[in-house]
Amino acid sequence: MQTPFNSETIAALSTPPGVSAIGVIRLSGNRAAEICEKIFQGKKLSAQLSHTLHHGWISDGDKKIDEVVVGIFRAPHSYTGEDVVEISCHGSPYILQRITNLLVEKGARLAKPGEFTLRAFLNGKLDLSQAEAVADLISSNSEASLRAAMQQMRGGFSKEIKELRQQLVDFAALVELELDFSEEDVEFANRKQLKELVSHLTSHVSRLIESFQLGNVIKHGVNVVIAGRPNAGKSTLLNLLLNEERAIVSEIPGTTRDTIEEVLNINGVLFRLIDTAGIREAQDAIEKLGVEKTFEKIRQSGILVYVFDAASMSREDVLADIEKLRHGEAPLILVGNKIDLLKDDSYHSKFNLNGSAVFISSKEGSNIQQIKKALVSKVSEENFQQEDTVVTNVRHHEALLRSKLALEDVLKGLDSKISGELLALDIRRALEELGTIIGEVTNEDVLDSIFSRFCIGK
Amino acid sequence: MQTPFNSETIAALSTPPGVSAIGVIRLSGNRAAEICEKIFQGKKLSAQLSHTLHHGWISDGDKKIDEVVVGIFRAPHSYTGEDVVEISCHGSPYILQRITNLLVEKGARLAKPGEFTLRAFLNGKLDLSQAEAVADLISSNSEASLRAAMQQMRGGFSKEIKELRQQLVDFAALVELELDFSEEDVEFANRKQLKELVSHLTSHVSRLIESFQLGNVIKHGVNVVIAGRPNAGKSTLLNLLLNEERAIVSEIPGTTRDTIEEVLNINGVLFRLIDTAGIREAQDAIEKLGVEKTFEKIRQSGILVYVFDAASMSREDVLADIEKLRHGEAPLILVGNKIDLLKDDSYHSKFNLNGSAVFISSKEGSNIQQIKKALVSKVSEENFQQEDTVVTNVRHHEALLRSKLALEDVLKGLDSKISGELLALDIRRALEELGTIIGEVTNEDVLDSIFSRFCIGK
Repeated sequence: MQTPFNSETIAALSTPPGVSAIGVIRLSGNRAAEICEKIFQGKKLSAQLSHTLHHGWISDGDKKIDEVVVGIFRAPHSYTGEDVVEISCHGSPYILQRITNLLVEKGARLAKPGEFTLRAFLNGKLDLSQAEAVADLISSNSEASLRAAMQQMRGGFSKEIKELRQQLVDFAALVELELDFSEEDVEFANRKQLKELVSHLTSHVSRLIESFQLGNVIKHGVNVVIAGRPNAGKSTLLNLLLNEERAIVSEIPGTTRDTIEEVLNINGVLFRLIDTAGIREAQDAIEKLGVEKTFEKIRQSGILVYVFDAASMSREDVLADIEKLRHGEAPLILVGNKIDLLKDDSYHSKFNLNGSAVFISSKEGSNIQQIKKALVSKVSEENFQQEDTVVTNVRHHEALLRSKLALEDVLKGLDSKISGELLALDIRRALEELGTIIGEVTNEDVLDSIFSRFCIGK
Repeated sequence: MQTPFNSETIAALSTPPGVSAIGVIRLSGNRAAEICEKIFQGKKLSAQLSHTLHHGWISDGDKKIDEVVVGIFRAPHSYTGEDVVEISCHGSPYILQRITNLLVEKGARLAKPGEFTLRAFLNGKLDLSQAEAVADLISSNSEASLRAAMQQMRGGFSKEIKELRQQLVDFAALVELELDFSEEDVEFANRKQLKELVSHLTSHVSRLIESFQLGNVIKHGVNVVIAGRPNAGKSTLLNLLLNEERAIVSEIPGTTRDTIEEVLNINGVLFRLIDTAGIREAQDAIEKLGVEKTFEKIRQSGILVYVFDAASMSREDVLADIEKLRHGEAPLILVGNKIDLLKDDSYHSKFNLNGSAVFISSKEGSNIQQIKKALVSKVSEENFQQEDTVVTNVRHHEALLRSKLALEDVLKGLDSKISGELLALDIRRALEELGTIIGEVTNEDVLDSIFSRFCIGK
């Protein structure tokens, strides 16, 4: 990167807009302390030690704007690796805007989205996948997504990619060395060892690619579609599942009611519950449309919950419905409702579903926990507990897919004994793709597209 | 106050809820550092100097929750006067909630709205009117409201009230001393001097009371109702006034579009522009309702802008309209529009309004600045420039009104030569009312009602 970013000091509001107790404006760059000093009445900021806090006033000429506390971080001991100043002021949007304007007037430039983190990357404080994890961390909304982002931010994933790459780099060097001696037909790189290595790398990369399915669930939650005949108790079940958790979810500030109504967090995994119109033989065109919508939702589901009335339906009804509902690969959870209307537990034998159904009474709220357990088990609960790397980022997933293709080309090339020159090309491709993940290979466009998705002020 | 607040350490999110680069959680109380330390991996927080920043990790057992920077403020050198710890973490609502929950688990209590500032007051860091100014500062949305809040927060108003009170306290002591010698009929307090003092205080208090009208304008803006016949150009004028300023206003984060469309900030004063249906003879019942609504708005206006068509209307039309519009005491601004349709500037003599009208062309956008100047002049521009105290707080205004009544009773009592006992009672009342403003006299109910209106985390 040749961007002369060091010459510019950037500034931005780093806390959400809105009225609150505190707002924080952040500056980064060579002149951060010097620029802030121009509007600060208190100690001489540019003369202060790193990691210190200073009380004072922000003024515009002789007009006092706010009473503030300023934090000083000296390069390289800051988030960006540059001098950083944080102004903690009163959370009035008007005051925050006034101070930001003053900073710009005195020589700072408004930061672009993600520009602080971009600088942290450019200054070597974070690699690219760690920088991306910062954005994931900020948008994490469950224990699982937090854990995945945290693991990535702490460099676990980067380390793994770096190791894979290093193993290949060593071989690439040998293969490329051969090219210098191409007239002499020597082989410095042992083809058998290279093949073993590339097979090993391919399977490792494949495992990472596979983890993306889970990564997606971790990051975005899993769609749970609740289907069944009218009056089977779908909505009651939905409310039962939600109500119990609502108190916990609603404690999270910023979570809107709209979202709460549909999102369930079980053991740190988000389930997006989607109710559907009851399925039955469509009576007219409009109703038919509703039923088609239901099937549309069912096709997009990550998990399908089929609710049936255990008191009034027969085994044949249930099996017929299941037959109709089966679309795609979504795991199915069978829920027999209304057992409160039955005298004994003969429903187990009546439906004879091999123990795969959960029988509940949505009226009495019984056995709801079992449904939650079933939901969690369908998204591989065990995967959330182990320390394996999970790929959650679309860009990483795509780079892994491309590097897998390149590795497979290397293997094919080895089998067909192609020239060292072509082999070297394929190895380079694989190296490059892996390199883009951690930012060892990159370009401005990629960086722009990554960091433009960040918040301003980060 | 006997609240054993020191025994409890409080915690709250001090930045707005929502996804952002940074969120700040604040703790205050004896155990602030100790509690934070329990979930912090890094330096031993309780052993750190005041005004220092520390990088580290927040963990729940062995689960890392976030990478943070912690700021330490040691009592009494903090906002509340107690030990304060500020955790600056990533702005994920989920993470902020997790950390807040952990702090509560480790012994902190969630802070009530304004509780940090309440503690600052109880610990003598701020008096009551200064504490109230903190809330005003946070909600300030113009230069004028910011300046008024800042002056109050810096103690200008408190000082004035304290001085008024002190003068009265000295006399009260003398009058009460007489009561101890009531059998002996002595007068320690010179009645003539007392009367002079009370007259002086009364006029000072009256001036403060009068400033409240301006204070209200400063704090809430002034309603500007634009009225006139249909097609006189009211809406075009409204848009002209707004458009020019919109870019500036919309830069303030948190300002919603809805508000922007109607609020104009001129020289730091907010004007709330209100368009009305055109006034004319009502044709039917529904239209009559519309016209009545217009007059309703006109009655509530702070400033009335009457727009007339200078090209097609006669002087008599205009004078008749003005006669109809005159309701209440709102200052009137006359605006003659459509001068672009006229060949020369004979409109001045045609309407002969003694130079009190502004003639514009809303089509060409000419002379709009003159209207702005007229608006500002109607809210006593000069008042905004001088350093006189302006009362902006309803509670202060009411206390001043009551203390004025008490002072007037003192004056009446002096005139009718009532007993020292009764005189002392009235003086006490005046003292108490003034005392409530700065919090020298207070009670839990008043404090509750003041601080419950604060943000959480402040």
